[in-house]
Amino acid sequence: MNKALDFKIKGRIWIYSDSGTVIGEGRLKLLIGIDETGSISQAAKQMKMSYKKAWEMVNTMNLQFKTPIVVGSQGGVHGGGSKLSDNGKKLIEKYASLLEKNENFLCDEFLKMKF
Amino acid sequence: MNKALDFKIKGRIWIYSDSGTVIGEGRLKLLIGIDETGSISQAAKQMKMSYKKAWEMVNTMNLQFKTPIVVGSQGGVHGGGSKLSDNGKKLIEKYASLLEKNENFLCDEFLKMKF
Repeated sequence: MNKALDFKIKGRIWIYSDSGTVIGEGRLKLLIGIDETGSISQAAKQMKMSYKKAWEMVNTMNLQFKTPIVVGSQGGVHGGGSKLSDNGKKLIEKYASLLEKNENFLCDEFLKMKF
Repeated sequence: MNKALDFKIKGRIWIYSDSGTVIGEGRLKLLIGIDETGSISQAAKQMKMSYKKAWEMVNTMNLQFKTPIVVGSQGGVHGGGSKLSDNGKKLIEKYASLLEKNENFLCDEFLKMKF
């Protein structure tokens, strides 16, 4: 059916509420960055995003859960910093697993479409 | 896990090649509009899109298939106009069916996520 036989498929998924996005690929990347660097500011920098924007994304996520996704990490010589709560770690695991399952689903369905 | 218990999920899917998007939700809407109105220009107007943009979207799609997706429709007192080829009709059926299956898949997986 197609000329070049090089068609590909991609999907994106967002979880959201009336208060805004709960998680999508951007927020996942941001949370992974916070987990790796222990800092919203560093995670924002990695994504070439302003601190303000990153903080707002984190804040919107936190406000949508009973227990926050990102919390302040106290102590250590550097003090301050941020880290994922257990709830935050569960959120990224669940969402990353959903992305993987969705990718498999789309690949299977795409093959059946026979372009 | 969440405060308001009103989380929702949405997904989007694109089929693409190195030459650009083959089909996504915007192109699906445009093709349905062409099928309904018999005109790229009318379909573009419905979507508040310029004719130029709509024509380019159609052209990119057509160039990616051996047989075009949208063809000129000759005859009738008004002449001119455009319509979907059989290949175009198949494309929207396949893609719309994929969207529906994916929505069911995402809803099922979302329920399992137990927010």
